[in-house]
Amino acid sequence: MIVRCWKVLFAALIGIAALGPVQAQSPDPLPSWNDTPVKQDIIDFVARVTTEGSADYVAPQDRVATFDNDGTLWVEKPLYTSFVFVIDRVKAVSNQHPEWKTKEPFKSVLDGNTKKLLSYGEKGAVALIAATHSGMTTVEFNDIASNWLKTARHPRFKRPYTDLTYKPMIELLDYLRGNGFTTFIVSGGGIEFMRAYTEQCYGIPPWQVVGSSGKTEFRMWDASPTLVKLPDLLFFDDGPGKAEGINHYIGRQPIFAFGNSNGDKEMLEWTANCKGACFMGLVHHDDAMREYAYGPDSDVGTFPVALMEHADANGWGVVSMKDDWEVIFSWGAPSP
Amino acid sequence: MIVRCWKVLFAALIGIAALGPVQAQSPDPLPSWNDTPVKQDIIDFVARVTTEGSADYVAPQDRVATFDNDGTLWVEKPLYTSFVFVIDRVKAVSNQHPEWKTKEPFKSVLDGNTKKLLSYGEKGAVALIAATHSGMTTVEFNDIASNWLKTARHPRFKRPYTDLTYKPMIELLDYLRGNGFTTFIVSGGGIEFMRAYTEQCYGIPPWQVVGSSGKTEFRMWDASPTLVKLPDLLFFDDGPGKAEGINHYIGRQPIFAFGNSNGDKEMLEWTANCKGACFMGLVHHDDAMREYAYGPDSDVGTFPVALMEHADANGWGVVSMKDDWEVIFSWGAPSP
Repeated sequence: MIVRCWKVLFAALIGIAALGPVQAQSPDPLPSWNDTPVKQDIIDFVARVTTEGSADYVAPQDRVATFDNDGTLWVEKPLYTSFVFVIDRVKAVSNQHPEWKTKEPFKSVLDGNTKKLLSYGEKGAVALIAATHSGMTTVEFNDIASNWLKTARHPRFKRPYTDLTYKPMIELLDYLRGNGFTTFIVSGGGIEFMRAYTEQCYGIPPWQVVGSSGKTEFRMWDASPTLVKLPDLLFFDDGPGKAEGINHYIGRQPIFAFGNSNGDKEMLEWTANCKGACFMGLVHHDDAMREYAYGPDSDVGTFPVALMEHADANGWGVVSMKDDWEVIFSWGAPSP
Repeated sequence: MIVRCWKVLFAALIGIAALGPVQAQSPDPLPSWNDTPVKQDIIDFVARVTTEGSADYVAPQDRVATFDNDGTLWVEKPLYTSFVFVIDRVKAVSNQHPEWKTKEPFKSVLDGNTKKLLSYGEKGAVALIAATHSGMTTVEFNDIASNWLKTARHPRFKRPYTDLTYKPMIELLDYLRGNGFTTFIVSGGGIEFMRAYTEQCYGIPPWQVVGSSGKTEFRMWDASPTLVKLPDLLFFDDGPGKAEGINHYIGRQPIFAFGNSNGDKEMLEWTANCKGACFMGLVHHDDAMREYAYGPDSDVGTFPVALMEHADANGWGVVSMKDDWEVIFSWGAPSP
């Protein structure tokens, strides 16, 4: 608390000095970041690519920045939020599906056996999503997702998931957009679930959200056009799918990308293949007190040793949540 | 010529008057459009949805405008440009495929039998695209498309296809963007072929282009990441596919949409399903002298009688190229 007061006093003195002939420093664009090297690397990179005449100058239309969502922009522990939503949907409609009591992966959901559920991997997730994200219109699905986001609470923080976005990353998104970047989400999560909150939480419109998606079918119902969600997968946006998704949806190679796990490796490699300057970053969850600490051994958001070695060897920025972020969440919980 | 000189003189007088106390009228936002009702309808619509306090006001983030490409933003006769590109690609690589001499639809391409070729419909087009748009990297494909666009010439106008965009529609795109709209292309054409020119021609970045697409595969080649184009279709963006594509790629319902043929009907119906004010338009090719005149009987850009009746019954704007446009092409050919 004393530290905070000194900061305020110091800021006031700087403010007074600014009234005189000495020019005030521009305000800190990333105030929730501690003054550590990775913050300076980001600011230096943005200055280099936006300064006309610089060898690394990049025209605004080529300033594409892509961000993973779960674990990069908001909390993903103890389970990916989109997965919690799927589990709640399975439970909500299970009375219409008595066969789920004995059929996996539904049985594990109903038994509350998360470890077993995660062991079914991508195939299990796709089966659950197919069963719970289809058979309704896109408008109905959006209502279901929006209502869930209003009422669901995180088991540890007892807050809506939309409060559990990372404040330093929201600042980074704003900072990049203020410097002519276009910001995108490229996530393994369901595209329509994300679009229910990305504009409100991140200022990112739905057409700048890339995610996993199912097919839809256009039908005329009572002379009104409707899009019905089908159980068939259209696109799976994780791992190599992230580089493919960037091509399909965005159509331009990023020069800035941030992830936090093994599923983001190909997105960062694709970004690192840029012709000029580019920045690749990874959020490292090492703050058990304020959030979570996990890495190679985690089922969720796995950050293997090989990825850390690759990041170090290639100069990718690794953000320590513990050391590099003064604040974690957007809802403004006081730092301990 | 005399008319033009009078216009200049009149404009000069208006300019002089503006120096005095009388306020000058704002410049015409659509100068290549004649002063006919459809132009006024567009201007009135834009005023209604952008005026705060108006009953029809729409927030900027919801001002989504979608445009078909072939026949709506640029020429599509005698054949869709993307189809001409495919035909040229078949010919360019046919020496590697001796079997094409007897195998349809390739045989019709090599025989120059366009009528027979078009009779194979969507299935034929998909087969040709699969054979010619795969087996190379996305970077190589972009080079092939860009080079073709530089060298190919339209058979009648003897100009690059990128000169044959419609000036009134380019003005309309600019006018909408100037009023806070986000403009998208939603076309049956190949997404990567379009992205090779849409930013330069229309000011539309690649992530605001929705089109038909093939699958890609991420591969590491000599430690460099590469996206290889596969022959499998990912998404076919025509007819009902346009409404589905708007949902997949854009994720928000348009309030403004323009097409020119039967393949745009579902996009316009989906737009017409808006909650507040919306505008649906169709370009009608009725100007054989300056461009082409075609409709119900055309294989390319079919505009059936039923669509015209539907447009009239529902108050959709039908643009007569002959009567409503003072200029047709962006390259500035003088009006006759």
